[in-house]
Amino acid sequence: MEKVSANRSFGGTQGVYTHKSSVTGTDMTFSVFVPPHAEGATLPVVWYLSGLTCTHANVTDKGEFRAACAELGLIFVAPDTSPRGEGVPDDPAGAYDFGLGAGFYVDATEAPYAEHYKMWSYVTEELPAVIAANFPADMERQAIMGHSMGGHGALTIGLTLADRFRSVSAFAPIVAPGRVPWGEKALTGYLGTDTAAWRRHDAVALIEDGARVPALLVDQGAADQFLEGQLRPELLAAACSEAGITLTLRMQPGYDHSYYFIATFMEDHLRWHAARLT
Amino acid sequence: MEKVSANRSFGGTQGVYTHKSSVTGTDMTFSVFVPPHAEGATLPVVWYLSGLTCTHANVTDKGEFRAACAELGLIFVAPDTSPRGEGVPDDPAGAYDFGLGAGFYVDATEAPYAEHYKMWSYVTEELPAVIAANFPADMERQAIMGHSMGGHGALTIGLTLADRFRSVSAFAPIVAPGRVPWGEKALTGYLGTDTAAWRRHDAVALIEDGARVPALLVDQGAADQFLEGQLRPELLAAACSEAGITLTLRMQPGYDHSYYFIATFMEDHLRWHAARLT
Repeated sequence: MEKVSANRSFGGTQGVYTHKSSVTGTDMTFSVFVPPHAEGATLPVVWYLSGLTCTHANVTDKGEFRAACAELGLIFVAPDTSPRGEGVPDDPAGAYDFGLGAGFYVDATEAPYAEHYKMWSYVTEELPAVIAANFPADMERQAIMGHSMGGHGALTIGLTLADRFRSVSAFAPIVAPGRVPWGEKALTGYLGTDTAAWRRHDAVALIEDGARVPALLVDQGAADQFLEGQLRPELLAAACSEAGITLTLRMQPGYDHSYYFIATFMEDHLRWHAARLT
Repeated sequence: MEKVSANRSFGGTQGVYTHKSSVTGTDMTFSVFVPPHAEGATLPVVWYLSGLTCTHANVTDKGEFRAACAELGLIFVAPDTSPRGEGVPDDPAGAYDFGLGAGFYVDATEAPYAEHYKMWSYVTEELPAVIAANFPADMERQAIMGHSMGGHGALTIGLTLADRFRSVSAFAPIVAPGRVPWGEKALTGYLGTDTAAWRRHDAVALIEDGARVPALLVDQGAADQFLEGQLRPELLAAACSEAGITLTLRMQPGYDHSYYFIATFMEDHLRWHAARLT
């Protein structure tokens, strides 16, 4: 692991790091905020998974999470959204919603993506080991959250690894990728046309198939341009209701899909996670 | 005035706007955050002047001011740092510290800069009229703050227009441009070699020449790479001491010159302004 930058902020350190990933076969960049803490202490970890087109930098610059993480004593980890670099195939047409910046948190099985696009294994196995080895992290206390495609990642990872993550939340998540254009394109491209293989990467399908967590927090802008076509939180609400999962779904009037929305409710989410982590 | 974008955030509206400036002879872009407020209410205005290389966007993305402005009921205005566009001359060598992104909040008198580089008049006359005409602003209650070159702008404008601005603060300001390389280059280029003309654009010289405000708040990172060569807050401290101006100068251990530093202390500054505005 190499340090790209480290800046004092809110009494802690906002760092950006790179490492060679054996899972993706590329260099990967991520950011970590470590809040002020007592010498020798270990701290709970909140994972933040970003949305389409993003890198670690978007939330690091615009997420406004450091004040709350400093107050609550939370480490905040922001991975990239796809492998990058020479030899990593992109969307054939260069579209924003597949390939670079759009890994969808799956391990691809389809050529030519299967070689590098292993974001599920990267986020759930390789990067956690890097975090555990290099930061004052208490890996027994982890939470996961994300935005849009990253909300999809947070929900599917949180539901699948329910023993690992004490809490799960999302901003404007893609809740049912198997039933919306972004997800249909991505899951076809990465996993192929057999939709049975998609269900492990679809939060609503996971719940229908028996995955359980005690509670979920979702904020959704009511003026989000992607609400009806791509996000469809009502499908998550129905699945949670059927499954007995306590979903706090807050429709936020006037808010769109941007970081102006995310930053507004970031503190609420971090307090919600902290209450379950500390 | 044309709206470039408007996003709901922290219950208010973060907007970006452009207008044709008759002062600079160019289109100018700026951002305004209007917090939630009662219908018909007018709100105090905080001006934020940005540093070298910045546009309105840096603080708008990374300044973390909206939560506090929403709580305190403050309008937050962020102008650009120079004229831009076809026909606007830049630094002859394309350096970052003069020309585009580096207007230094003066009205240039030297060719070829005098035609467009009128940032003093733009920030103190033309843009305030645009704000007064288009936003729920109480122009009887204004404060000014800034970072680095923009800290220089905030101090010189605040000291010069002490009847207009109820409070003045800065992050890592250039306090004595007439005595440091950034300032010497800029003031020579914009105002010429007669250093007498520089004194109205040098906070320390202004105080030496009799300008007064009741109090100043300055935060300065102790690990700022520009501290000794360009910023020199000790010169401001000496001038304020001599003049009987109450300067709160906080040296912040470990902090650098970045927005990670600014964001950390933004809320403190906004509370300090609000206490004098509301």
